[in-house]
Amino acid sequence: MNALQIARQAAITAAREARTCYRNGLVAPSAGIAPGMTQANLIALPRDWAYDFLLYAQRNPQACPVLDVTDAGSFVTPMAEGADLRTDLPLYRIWRNGKLAEEVSDARGAWAEHPDMVTFLIGCSFTFETGLLEADIDVRHITDGGNVPMYRTNRACRPAGRLHGEMVVSMRPIPADRVAEAATITGRYPAVHGAPVHVGEPLQIGITDLAKPDFGEAVRIEPGEIPVFWACGVTPQAAVMASGVPFAITHSPGHMFITDVPDSTYHV
Amino acid sequence: MNALQIARQAAITAAREARTCYRNGLVAPSAGIAPGMTQANLIALPRDWAYDFLLYAQRNPQACPVLDVTDAGSFVTPMAEGADLRTDLPLYRIWRNGKLAEEVSDARGAWAEHPDMVTFLIGCSFTFETGLLEADIDVRHITDGGNVPMYRTNRACRPAGRLHGEMVVSMRPIPADRVAEAATITGRYPAVHGAPVHVGEPLQIGITDLAKPDFGEAVRIEPGEIPVFWACGVTPQAAVMASGVPFAITHSPGHMFITDVPDSTYHV
Repeated sequence: MNALQIARQAAITAAREARTCYRNGLVAPSAGIAPGMTQANLIALPRDWAYDFLLYAQRNPQACPVLDVTDAGSFVTPMAEGADLRTDLPLYRIWRNGKLAEEVSDARGAWAEHPDMVTFLIGCSFTFETGLLEADIDVRHITDGGNVPMYRTNRACRPAGRLHGEMVVSMRPIPADRVAEAATITGRYPAVHGAPVHVGEPLQIGITDLAKPDFGEAVRIEPGEIPVFWACGVTPQAAVMASGVPFAITHSPGHMFITDVPDSTYHV
Repeated sequence: MNALQIARQAAITAAREARTCYRNGLVAPSAGIAPGMTQANLIALPRDWAYDFLLYAQRNPQACPVLDVTDAGSFVTPMAEGADLRTDLPLYRIWRNGKLAEEVSDARGAWAEHPDMVTFLIGCSFTFETGLLEADIDVRHITDGGNVPMYRTNRACRPAGRLHGEMVVSMRPIPADRVAEAATITGRYPAVHGAPVHVGEPLQIGITDLAKPDFGEAVRIEPGEIPVFWACGVTPQAAVMASGVPFAITHSPGHMFITDVPDSTYHV
């Protein structure tokens, strides 16, 4: 094996080990784990809701870039050999009638409630964080060892069928002189949310207090840093809430599915 | 208005005039018309088939990049104000049980057969031809005033539900010293098929005779030119044939829907 192959193999091994840990019960945000491997948001819905959701994703591609869709009743994906989507994420949320019912680290029981669950894997901005780190741009929630802060915005997504809701964003504080570079780097990854949707001025998108994110954890913002907002794959969960979806399983924000697919696959 | 706005307005006017001509009965390939405006492939299916198709497109994004999906029973799109998708393309194909039944320039009668038709607009490589022309790369079928040659390949698409089929490609002969540039330019437009899927060696993808395309018209290939193949939005029509879809309406290959959306929207 050459050096690139060795690095690739090490990254895949790290991804598999992480999934095994989560399967065995470890609960922790996945930012910074298995660097270089694509991470994904998850939402599973009964087949009856699958078309509405796939259309919602198509109409809101920056927030909901679809990376893979399982067949109804299946919980495997070509994105990660041997993975079980019901157990291999660190934490799941079970939604009933648009409300969060419980969080579980093993969702096999929830999946068993409907024989025809369709699972969607949605691009995650953790994927492009490796690119930011490689450019020596600090990713605060990784540096400080927490979860990324995420906020509901006042930006309505384009509805589809029975689904509507607002865009959710993730936020990273970026030094003013690196904002353009962060936009350029992340813009190269349109399949994992791409460039920021908003830079600075959180009030304009309906965020009144950066210290109180709707999901994840607040991060410190240093003087000279600008809050930069990227579309976030928690947007489907906002749609579940706003639309009163009868039943859904999602990942818990920041607790993603780590795949065997290198980030470079989504680099354009 | 500044110069850019004037140019933009002229392009939109050209797009509207073209749609009006097609609505009034003009039948002609649309390559080279309204340069700078996004062109789209069209497939309309009864609602019962819409999920399978949207999933097929998601699983084969290079061949079937979805630009817009109408609500069931609707034939308008935000991509072109005032346009009627049933009349504003130069030529349509009506498919019954996987076979081409007829070609019509006004498809209102066909649309009326099912009250719940869902229409998909799929990215078209005509969109990035403006970029090739701007780089002084000859686009042969535009220069010679014909339709682009398209070929069925031996590359299977990833199936979805009841849909399966092979990838269709379009071909443009490119001088050997410009192939890399053509790949780079078109790679910047992933939503309209992006970079080539194959360069040279047509036999490897199952094309035995470049002079006999399955759709469109053959073009001359000059000495020193390489046949370069891009994924093509006629791929859905190959799926209709291979899968025996009961009823579908599509554009006729090369006879596209011209939108009011500038190419630059899909530039990454």
